Parts: sequence; C-alpha cells; structure tokens
Amino acid sequence: MSLPLILEKYRPEIDREIRAVIDSRSSPLYNMMRYHFGWIDREGRPARGDSGKALRPALCLFSCEAAGGDYRNALPAAAALELLHNFSLIHDDIQDDDRERRHRPTVWAVWGKPQAINAGTAMRILAGEALFRLPEETVPPAKRMALCRLLDETTLKLIEGQYLDISFEKRFDIGIADYLTMISGKTAALISAAMETGARLGTNNEYLINVFGGAGRKLGLAFQVRDDILGIWGDERETGKPAGSDIRRHKKSFPVVYSLDNLGGRDKQELISLYQDPSMDDSAVRRVLAIFDSVDARTGAQKMVDSYCEAAVKEFNSLKIASKYKQDLSGLVQFLTGRTY
Amino acid sequence: MSLPLILEKYRPEIDREIRAVIDSRSSPLYNMMRYHFGWIDREGRPARGDSGKALRPALCLFSCEAAGGDYRNALPAAAALELLHNFSLIHDDIQDDDRERRHRPTVWAVWGKPQAINAGTAMRILAGEALFRLPEETVPPAKRMALCRLLDETTLKLIEGQYLDISFEKRFDIGIADYLTMISGKTAALISAAMETGARLGTNNEYLINVFGGAGRKLGLAFQVRDDILGIWGDERETGKPAGSDIRRHKKSFPVVYSLDNLGGRDKQELISLYQDPSMDDSAVRRVLAIFDSVDARTGAQKMVDSYCEAAVKEFNSLKIASKYKQDLSGLVQFLTGRTY
Repeated sequence: MSLPLILEKYRPEIDREIRAVIDSRSSPLYNMMRYHFGWIDREGRPARGDSGKALRPALCLFSCEAAGGDYRNALPAAAALELLHNFSLIHDDIQDDDRERRHRPTVWAVWGKPQAINAGTAMRILAGEALFRLPEETVPPAKRMALCRLLDETTLKLIEGQYLDISFEKRFDIGIADYLTMISGKTAALISAAMETGARLGTNNEYLINVFGGAGRKLGLAFQVRDDILGIWGDERETGKPAGSDIRRHKKSFPVVYSLDNLGGRDKQELISLYQDPSMDDSAVRRVLAIFDSVDARTGAQKMVDSYCEAAVKEFNSLKIASKYKQDLSGLVQFLTGRTY
Repeated sequence: MSLPLILEKYRPEIDREIRAVIDSRSSPLYNMMRYHFGWIDREGRPARGDSGKALRPALCLFSCEAAGGDYRNALPAAAALELLHNFSLIHDDIQDDDRERRHRPTVWAVWGKPQAINAGTAMRILAGEALFRLPEETVPPAKRMALCRLLDETTLKLIEGQYLDISFEKRFDIGIADYLTMISGKTAALISAAMETGARLGTNNEYLINVFGGAGRKLGLAFQVRDDILGIWGDERETGKPAGSDIRRHKKSFPVVYSLDNLGGRDKQELISLYQDPSMDDSAVRRVLAIFDSVDARTGAQKMVDSYCEAAVKEFNSLKIASKYKQDLSGLVQFLTGRTY
C-alpha cells in the first residue's frame, strides 16, 4: 500500500522543523525525544527509526495550502501539532505500561517512568514554543494567540479523553455515546485542530476554517475506530504493537462497546466476566474474539469508519476550493479507512 | 512562628483566582486538582486542607505592587505560577514514589499513577490558560506573549532540573556546581519567574524587572537549600513529610553534596557505600546523619541559605522603591531562612 500524497509531500520539511525545535535546547533530557522519534538509538548513535505517519502535521500543511495559503508559513504550527501528539504517546505508553512502540522499546522502557514523564511533559511545552517560530510578518499577534489557545484547549480535551479512557477500563456501563465522547477528546480534537490550525494560517474566512475543523473532527473519529480495529485484529509486524493488545489491556475500544451494546443475557455476561479478570490468558483472548465475531463487531466497526469518512469527504467537497485538493483528501481518506498500520 | 505579611496579605484573592481557573472546566479530571489543593476530600466532599504556602503567587503580586503596579491586574499571572508549581509537585510525587504531602495522601496514592500524570499535565496547561485571563486593557498582546514565553521557558528549566535531580540519584561525582545547576532549574527558575512576572506587570522599566528576577533567583536557591535541610532534619509534624526522607530516597541534596565535598578517604567511601544500598534501613540512616554531623553539614547548608538571602536582600534594597516594600521583603526572607515547614 503506497502512502497518499498528503503524507508524503511535506514530510522532509516537517522533520526538519521538529528537529530545529528540539535542537534549540541543550540538556540531555532532549535525547529521550530524539530517541522517541527514531533519530538516535538508546546510546545516542544516529539511527533511522520509524517516526510514525506524521498525519497531523501533514493535515495542517495541506489545510493551509487548500485554504489558499503558503504551507511554508505553517511549518512551525505543524511541528507543534506533531510534538503535542507525541507528548501524548510518551505519556500513554507509561500509563498503559506498553513496552514497545514503532518496533522499538518505549521511552520509559529505556529510561524508566520518572524520566519518561519528564520527556513527555517537556515535549508538550516545546509544542507551545514551536508556535513562537511562526513568521511575525504573516502571523499577527492576535492570530498567534488564537493558535496558542487552540493548542491549550486541544491538549486539555486530549487529557480529558485520556482520563475517560483510563476510567472506562473498570466500567461496563459504557455505551456508544460515552465511547464517542472519549475519542472526541482523545483523538478527534487534535486531528480537528490540525486542520483548523492549517486553515487559519491559510485564510481569514471563518466559515472555511470551521468546515476544515469539522471535517478534521470526523476524520479523527474514523481514524480512532480504525485504530481500535487494528488494536484487536492488526498484524503485529505492521502495527508495531502485539496483536490483541487492546483486549489484554481491558480497553473499552469500539469492538467491545459495540459488542456489549449488541449482546444480551448470557453472552454479554460472559464478555463482562472475561474483562473483569485482571490477567487475561490466551484462551480468554480467543473467547473474547469469538464473542466479537458472533455479533460481527469488526464489520460494525468498519461501517463506523466508512460512515465518518464519507461525512468528512462530503463536508470538505462542499467547499469552493480547487478540485485537486479534494482529490488529495480523498486519497488520504481511502488510505486511512483501509490502513493496516 | 507567624506568617510574614507577603504570604498573608494576598492569599484569599490568590485562592479565588485559582479556583476560577479550575472551575472553568467540567470534566471529573479536575477533581484531582481540587483534592490536591485541599478543597475537597477524596470522595468529593468540601474540605479545608492545607494548600501550601503559596509563596510564588505571593511574590508575583508583591513584586507587581513594589514595582509600581496594581497587584489586582497580576492575579491571573499569580494563579498561573502557583498552578505551574503544583503541576510539578503532582509529577514529583509520582516520580519519587511519595505517598504523602501536606499531611494527606498524594494524588497518585488516591487515583493511581496513570490518572495523576493526567492531573499534573492538565494543571500545567491550565497555568498557560490562566494568562489569558490577564486584563486586555492593561496587558497588551506583546507583554502577554512575553509572559507566555517566560512561563514556557521556566517550565522547561524546571523539568531540566528535575531530570538532573533524578539522574543524580545514581551518581557520586556531583559537586556543588552540579548541585547549583540542578536547583537553579528545579527551584530557582520559578521563584525568579514569579518576581520577574510581577515586576513586568507593574512597570516597563527593564532594569527594575531584571533586578527583581535576579533577587528571585537568589531567594530561590536559598529556599531550596533550606528545603534540603528540612528534608533531612525537619520535623514530620511540621513538614508533612517523613523525617530523613531525602536520605532514604537517595537524593543528592545539599548536605550530601557538601559532605562528599568535605570528606576524604574512608569516610567518603562509607557515605558512598551507604547511598549505594537501594534499601537503606534505620541504622544506615543514623550512620549517614552521623557522617553529616562530622563535617557539620547542617551548619554548612544554613550558611549557604543565609548567604543567598543576604545577596537577594542587598540586590533588592539597592532599588529606588518605597522602603515599606524593602521591609516586607526582609520580613519574608527572615521567615524563609528559619522556616520549619
């Protein structure tokens, strides 16, 4: 599966900008960040590790261009969004006790949790700092301030979503609506902010900016449900995470919530019992998978992905912008709905 | 020992401002913050717990007034500084595995480490949000932006200091200079920022602002060394932390660094061996204390406190400002050098 244009086109410039932000500091603290991005190994030697898809900064730059701006002016904002996303990954890995990401040991698995907490929080502060690199000539103080506040607001929504995600682990009364509230914060807020930020740097048309943000929110919801599918049925060699890991971590991801919603009586009770066991063994995981199959949870989840993607594309295509941008977004959406990593 | 005027005078208004910032959000995530500040108990019932001395916001408001401004305009900035400080306490307690603070279980001891990480990071974001409550009429965009950047820079210095503090735990080649670098980041940067921020909101005189910041830095260094004295010889009933806790946690606090610096041969080797033992028992702690006594480490530490305090007061008293502010600062400094909690 080849990468869609949006993810490919801006990548070298995004990486360069993120490096410049991190390289502005000198403490060895920042080596944990360089390791996380795959630029160095744990001993500090240059490496060429996987840095992730960099979806959010790409969407920011694409949105700036599609809204009529010069994407180069938005590079610092794109870096800010990717730093914000990666702060959340570093803390997530600590919170979920995940020892591996992107086929490498996680930051805490190398440096311990106390130092990884430092790396994550400092990365979020660097995200804010990146916004001060936006060119003064094209970004007046009021706009810069609006972007700062959007970054803060998005971070709070993300943490509020993460708070729900963790608190849902012990609950079984989670419906689809609760699930959507949780992923709206945890995932969709940031993808929406990426498109809104880019658009805001490309135009002053508030209607246009609003539609970009709204399309981003729907894309974000679709992205998370697809992520939930991969968290259960994904191939470890592609995702970099152990198969079935979301089941073992007792995550109330979409397939579980969907199954709880569609099961009755004894089967529902069995699923709950399986999830109540703190240490699920392989046979328990297999039984959970069988229960998911019995209500066709995977198809249900993919329908959700497709429906949010369609809505996002429809919203975006209603805009009066050059058709090549509409094709580019469709290419990205096609990739996201079927992605295997 | 009665509280100095600076810590008493502004307290109700500081508390009100911090509450308003936290109450602007609605997720249950924020109850962890309310608990941390002692406003509610773990079940959510109203409480009147100890919220700490609130030194940093008080210094901010005092500095605004002493520099010629109206302290009420600085209230949002004072709240931001106290939120920044308390974010670091919540994360510190996780990192140091401390189960008690201010005579109560720490946030992680009640909600678990994953949720406490969320509470701490979200509190740091709220600190930034608080700055957007500064009155637009008296704080033009450029000044607000400068304060935002100072808050970011201070947070990074604080985390860089915390990174050193943790990495020093396993090292024995730490000299006084390394120690000072570490506490400059971990503690002095924020106390300096409190005075600089206040002064900046009270005047546009860069020389004055600079002197306030410099005096704050020295006060901050003194404050941390006094804290180190209390971390070893403090009374648990007053400090709210177990006596000798810094020894058991293998912290390279001032008395250890001073002793390593002043000991030779066999005694130095013994101190190192004692600190290399991962689980120090009571007799090991007693032996460490005896070694500290043999080089008079407590007196050495207090001399450091006094000398930084004198330098801060001298710097401050060189300013052409009303003498009552000089008396107020002297009162605070007298309290800080001898404080027992």
